[in-house]
Formats: sequence, structure tokens, C-alpha cells
Amino acid sequence: MANTLESRNLTMLMDFYELSMANGYFANGMEKQVAYFDMFFRRVPDNGGFAIMAGLRQLIDYLKNLKFTQKDLELFARKGFNEDFVEYLRNFKFSCDVWAIPEGTPIFPGEPIITVKGPVIEAQLIETMVLLTINHQSLIATKANRLKRAAGDRMIMEFGSRRAQGYDGAVYGARAAYIGGCDATACTIDERDFGIPAVGTMAHSWIQLFGDELEAFCAYARQYPDNCTLLVDTYNVLKTGIPNAIEAFKREVLPRGFRPKGIRIDSGDITYLSKKARKMLDDAGFPDCKIVASNSLDEIIIRDMLMQGAQVDSFGVGERLITAASNPVFGGVYKIVAVEENGVAVPRIKLSENVAKITTPCAKKLYRLFDNETGKAVADVITLTDEKLEGLTEYELFDPVYTWKRKKIKNFTAKPLLVKIFDKGESCYQSPDIKDIKKFCNEQVDTLWDEVKRFENPHAYYVDLSERLWNEKKRLLDEYANKD
Amino acid sequence: MANTLESRNLTMLMDFYELSMANGYFANGMEKQVAYFDMFFRRVPDNGGFAIMAGLRQLIDYLKNLKFTQKDLELFARKGFNEDFVEYLRNFKFSCDVWAIPEGTPIFPGEPIITVKGPVIEAQLIETMVLLTINHQSLIATKANRLKRAAGDRMIMEFGSRRAQGYDGAVYGARAAYIGGCDATACTIDERDFGIPAVGTMAHSWIQLFGDELEAFCAYARQYPDNCTLLVDTYNVLKTGIPNAIEAFKREVLPRGFRPKGIRIDSGDITYLSKKARKMLDDAGFPDCKIVASNSLDEIIIRDMLMQGAQVDSFGVGERLITAASNPVFGGVYKIVAVEENGVAVPRIKLSENVAKITTPCAKKLYRLFDNETGKAVADVITLTDEKLEGLTEYELFDPVYTWKRKKIKNFTAKPLLVKIFDKGESCYQSPDIKDIKKFCNEQVDTLWDEVKRFENPHAYYVDLSERLWNEKKRLLDEYANKD
Repeated sequence: MANTLESRNLTMLMDFYELSMANGYFANGMEKQVAYFDMFFRRVPDNGGFAIMAGLRQLIDYLKNLKFTQKDLELFARKGFNEDFVEYLRNFKFSCDVWAIPEGTPIFPGEPIITVKGPVIEAQLIETMVLLTINHQSLIATKANRLKRAAGDRMIMEFGSRRAQGYDGAVYGARAAYIGGCDATACTIDERDFGIPAVGTMAHSWIQLFGDELEAFCAYARQYPDNCTLLVDTYNVLKTGIPNAIEAFKREVLPRGFRPKGIRIDSGDITYLSKKARKMLDDAGFPDCKIVASNSLDEIIIRDMLMQGAQVDSFGVGERLITAASNPVFGGVYKIVAVEENGVAVPRIKLSENVAKITTPCAKKLYRLFDNETGKAVADVITLTDEKLEGLTEYELFDPVYTWKRKKIKNFTAKPLLVKIFDKGESCYQSPDIKDIKKFCNEQVDTLWDEVKRFENPHAYYVDLSERLWNEKKRLLDEYANKD
Repeated sequence: MANTLESRNLTMLMDFYELSMANGYFANGMEKQVAYFDMFFRRVPDNGGFAIMAGLRQLIDYLKNLKFTQKDLELFARKGFNEDFVEYLRNFKFSCDVWAIPEGTPIFPGEPIITVKGPVIEAQLIETMVLLTINHQSLIATKANRLKRAAGDRMIMEFGSRRAQGYDGAVYGARAAYIGGCDATACTIDERDFGIPAVGTMAHSWIQLFGDELEAFCAYARQYPDNCTLLVDTYNVLKTGIPNAIEAFKREVLPRGFRPKGIRIDSGDITYLSKKARKMLDDAGFPDCKIVASNSLDEIIIRDMLMQGAQVDSFGVGERLITAASNPVFGGVYKIVAVEENGVAVPRIKLSENVAKITTPCAKKLYRLFDNETGKAVADVITLTDEKLEGLTEYELFDPVYTWKRKKIKNFTAKPLLVKIFDKGESCYQSPDIKDIKKFCNEQVDTLWDEVKRFENPHAYYVDLSERLWNEKKRLLDEYANKD
């Protein structure tokens, strides 16, 4: 499936400091200096128990297309960069190794979700786009998964394009929403470019244009007798909307050999209205006619509506999904964790007065440990690159803050989570079809205990460091403490 | 200045219901049916007193580029649209008239900010992009203006690309932020495409790569002696960061004949640290060295920091600006307001159980009334298209809800706010240079009373209907009420 980003050159979408630094590294003869960077995040949006990784496909497209144009180089000259650095950029070729957690995977705070190794100039220049791409889509996929958990088997449709933060917010937001749990989108371009089903029937303007509601409904039903969903709240849901819908179904749908598909309620108290609507439709002989609800929904409202017995089969969710309105930022960061000196990766740490902001140094691997009996994920373990957890029969987890809290686990399978996606600058990973990513996401969320999935005060899933990595971090912290 | 959107075809970025309706209108022989649509919004984000109009330049680019590709038409065929409708789309040519309020203008709830008149199919098909474009950029411009009001004469830099909601969220978000009040951006592509100054110096990784903070500062200062701003919080702001910065300024900046430019603090309690930093820099003989603050800032934090005496000259604002995090949705809607019958515009109204959601019918004009003595904006008045307020010496405003509240004003100038931007599908408006838009915004915000500009409980600016428009609305409401 083609992807609109494939043909876009977003090389210049970078924070200017990346260029200021690159120019400085180059002037200091450090263009071959190899460094390691990790992307990780510190907090799950909405204080949830986990996030959903998304955006990798677009990150790969971006990295494949890295190239400065003549116009870019002219800007750099005007900005005062050294001539030989501008020449270096003219011939820029991406040559880093990149590892990433596949899209659709549940991810947790503190673990590396993208890792980049390569010349520091290159690794630094991609910072903004790595973060922007993954932060955005993971934000929306995470929100969509919350909606899916609230709605259960009911359908969720993404309806938010008009309130998205920019065009890509709509297009890739709908993509991420689909991965995380939505079943369809209103955003037509997403069906063309990603194969996500695009759906939509009518706005209030359809009814207002015809003036007469019944006439408008009948015209629509004649056009779409096999797929007739009518918007019933232009004037008055119970007094005119539903009676007119029922009449239109009888006049124009049934005689053509079809069954009415649904009604949509877009305002008012939907819980109340949907119960009344259900009864009216049932009484009219249309128990199979679905009820669609839209209008400022989110996962909390959906959960409460269903608890109160709302008779809704399908939810259209707009602005609160496409902007993740309750928490519209996914706070992924990109930090240097090691620098190569004489071919050896020497760890680097960032201290902070804020303990949560201290980084974990070193080039890393990441494992997820699944219990063999239940199939459930037990913990993630971050290790040094030369550690191997596959095949171990026993492993002792310990809390990286309260190190006396220890737990031995047995009978598990350790699965490495980071997959190599670029080898020396060459793409070496094929993104799965988006339907497979969506399916994978659903399956992987199923490996989490319900306690991790709840909305309020979810259980904090274990993300631990291996003993060796922990020792390395402690050594660096002590080193800096002793400097004072 | 070139614009990246100029070459993008976003025709398919539409809600599918627009196509479902268009196919239906076409099948009903209504392809020449003329309708009037208004875009307006109901509430200012963050409960502010006004919003800032932005995004028109990109809306114009989109409308100029409307065209369906072969691939789009194939999708429509697969989706089951009538063959003659698909042919109609193959030859689609935009032919509407469009009016808009120019970018940078303060705008208020309930007034038309975009008005479209033309064949209903066309006017309906552009709904999503009209809303998406204006909603997004107006959201960010409005937020940026709040930041500007908090920071006063201090500089504000937009630093949020990495947390933006998609690429366009970053690129056009930075554009809108500049219009609304920011002075610069970190987003490099915005300097290339819009001429907005791109700025940025170093990340913590610069210091971590060198390992030694002083060495890292000296290397940077040698490279940029004329523009040397150092990030001082990698290890410890007061113990190492500022002393090392001062040492680097002395070693590498002064001997080259320059003055130190600044230091940046990105963590910790910036109010406290900035006061200490100011004293240390002053004592070192650098009272002209600026202090830059970043790290999760917004207008409330900036206001409070300044009230508490923070010694900050310049603010870098990231995620809370680029996503308008405190209220990430600008709720513009696009509603049909009239339908042409026999060459006459017949008003349409959308009722709602929610009184605030009842639309104002009719094709409209919009005036802003400025007091001739103070130059301040007194009220906006929405009129029918054949009403003329220019040249009147006296006008009676009245509240559209509490109609007995009346106020006569004299000695005013009535300025029409809606400007024609498309005439029968042809672009007839030249967007000003972005620097002029920014300047215009600043001047127009100055025409508002301070009471409208405050953050909490701002004075509700008058947006009134003319007597004739109000009568028309009332007539339609009564008509529907009597139907029951």
C-alpha cells in the first residue's frame, strides 16, 4: 500500500540546534565520532498502565528520504555554517544502525523504544523527526486503545479530522487510531493510502438542504438502500428524527429488499435517547437497526454510558481521540547514552535535580518475559548488549529504585523487543500490513494482565535493569557525586 | 516565499460523508444547487476573551490545488459511487465564492470567520479542510498570543516540534505561533519555507559527548563566539554550569572581541536559579548576558515566574504551545445557513436541544465597530448581506439573548471583516507576507480593551446581530416551534 510520506522530503524538519551542534562537531573533527542515542518516555498519557508503539513505518520512510536540497544548503550558508560543513551536508548519506520496537507493541516508561548508533552528527540530526513521528502516533494509538477497551466489542470509528492539529495530525492520527483499536475512519485519504476503511453517511446539512426531514431521509435511503444510516438529531430526535427514519426505512429500504442499517445520534443525552430509540426501532420491527453515537465522546464517557445501559452499537469519536485531548502530549525524549572511544562504547549519563530525569546509560537490549503457563507478560528487562536472556530457566528481577525488592521467576520465555530496522543506513525491515499491525496490537495487549489495563491506578508493570546495567548506572552516579 | 503546501494535493483529506452526500446530491440532480455555509466557533480555548485567526494562506493553497487523481476515482468506483458522479469528480473544478477574515485578526465566538457560497457539492466537499486548516492554526496562534501577553517585551521562541501532533502540526504550528506572538522557532523548515527565524544552540548531548562540561562549552564558544548561548543544567546549574560558562566566555568569547550572548536553563526551579544566575553573571562582569528559560513552560507559569522576580530574558516554549496542551481543540464548525431557491437565498437553521448549538441562519456580513476617539474595538455586528453600516453616525447594539439590553453608540467606524478570497473558484486575494501578518495581529490585539485580554474571566466582547438578522432568526425559530 502506497504511503503519502514516501514522496515527501522532511529532512529540514529538524530543530536548529541539531545543525548548530553538527556544524560544531564537524569543525572539531568529530564527523566520524560514533554515539548511541535512546528514545524513551517517562510517563504514560492519562496515567495509563502502558502505551502503544506506532509510527515506525513513517519513521522508516523519512530516514530513507534524508537528503538536503540546494535551497537548504543556501539557507545554511546564510546562517553562517562553515563551507566544508555545508559541503558535507550536500553529500549527506545516512549510515546509522537503528533498532526499534515494532508497531502495535505495548510499551512502558523508561525502556528504549528506538535506539540509534552511528556518527554523532547523523544520529543528532534525526532527533526531531524520530521523536515527532513516534510521539505523535504512539499518543493516538494509546488513546485509541483506551477507547477500544471501554467499548469492548462495539465498533469505534475515528471522526476527528476537522479538529486535528494539522493535516498529518488527521492522516497519521487516523492510521495510529486504527492500529490502537479503531475499526474505521472518516478520513478518506486513509483508505486510499493505507487501506483503512473510510466510512460516513450524512451531515445535518443534508437534512437542512432538503428542508423537510422525511424527504431528506427518503432521498438518502433511495441512494443507499443497502447501507442506510440516518442522522436523526437535526430537529428533534424522538419527535421527528426517529419517526421519520422509520418511515423512510419502510418507504425506501424494505421495498428494495434491504434492511435498515442504522441511525446516528449526534447531540443530546445519548444514553437516554439511545434507550428510547432502541425501543422505537424494535417496536417498528427493526431490532437489527444499529444505533450510532457521536458528539464529544471519550473512553470515560463511553464506559459510563455503557454502565448506564446505553443502547449504542457503534461510536464515532472525534476531537478527543484525534488530539488525545485529555493528555495531548506523548513525552518521548532522545538522549545520548554512550560514546565510542577506541571502538568501545563508553556510557554517558545525564544527571538532573529531578531524579526521574536521570537517564540510564549504555548501549542496551530490551527483553519482554512471558510466563509460559499463562502467556502473560511478566516484566521487561533492559540489559547490556552482550547479555542474553533467551533460554534462561530462572531470572531474578529487582526493583531499580528499591533494590531489596526481588522476585525470582521461572518457566518464562524471554523475547527481545528491539528489531533492527536500519543497518549502516540501509533499511532492513519490512513494515507489516497495517491490518496485521492492528491484529498484533490486539494480541499483544491481550498478554497484559487486566490490572495493567485499567484506566485508574493501573498496576505498574515491571521494567527492570539487569544487575550489570544497574551496576554501571550506579557507578556513573557515584562518580559524579564524588566530583562535587 | 515558497510554501510547502503549494505542491501538495490534499483533495482526498475529506470526511467520507461529504462524498456520500455529494454522490446523493448528484443523483438527485442537485449539482447546480447553490448553498451558503459559515464557519464559526462557539468558545475561545482556555476560556479566553478572543482567538486569533490563522491558516488562511494554507486554505487558499489547498483550494487552488483541488483535483482528484485517477487513483482517487478508482477508489470511488470501488466504494460504489455512481459512474456519472465519478465522471463529475474527474472533471471537478472549484467554482465557489469564499470570504474570510484575514489572518492575525482577533475573532470571537458566533461570528462567521469563513463563508462559502456555491454549488452544494463543492461547498460540502471542502468542509473538512476548511475546518482542519483554520481550527489548527487559529488554535496555536491563539495560544501563542496568550504567551506573548504573559511575557510582555521578552522574547518567546517556539521549541515544540518534537511533541507536535504530526509533521504539519510542527510546521504550520510554528507558523501560527509566529503570527500570534512568537519571535522565532526551532523548526528549521519554517525559516526555509516561511522566513521565520530559526534558532537553537545545543542539547545536553553536546556536553555529554565531550564529557567535560568546560571543554564542551569552550568548543562551542570557539565555534560561535559572536552568538554564544550555553546550556548550563546538564550536571548542576549553580555548582558547575554557570561557573564553567563564565570561564568559557572569558577564555573563548572575550579574547575574540565578542560579548557572551546567553545561558539557557532547562530544568530545576527556574525562578530561583535565574536570580542566582543573574547575580553570578553580573558579578563576573556580564550584565548583558541574557538568561533563557525552557522546560514545560506556559503562559500561566511565565506570568507567575515574572511576578516572583524571575530574571529571564527569553522563553523557549515547547509542547504546551505546539499542542495548545491546556485546551488542544479549536472547535470551529461549518454549517449550512441558506439555500438558493429561484435565485434567492432562503435561510436555514439547525435547531438543537442545546441552545448554544442553534445556528444563526442567512447569508451574512460582519462588521467591527471601532470607537473613533480611542481606536478601540467596541463590538462586532453580524448583518444581512444587503445591510450597510459604513458611514452610519449612530447604531443601536442589543444583546441577541437579552434583547432589552441595548446600547447606542456614536462616533465609530464600521469596518467589514470578511474579505473575498475566491471569486467563482478563482483566487482573488494575495496573502500578506508573514511578518506583516504578525505585525497586523499585534496591532489588532492592541485595539482590544485590556478587560478582553485577561486570562481569567475576560470581559465578553459584544458580538451582536443586526435587528433584521435577529428577526429572521426569530421567525425561523418560531416556525419550528409551531410545527410541534
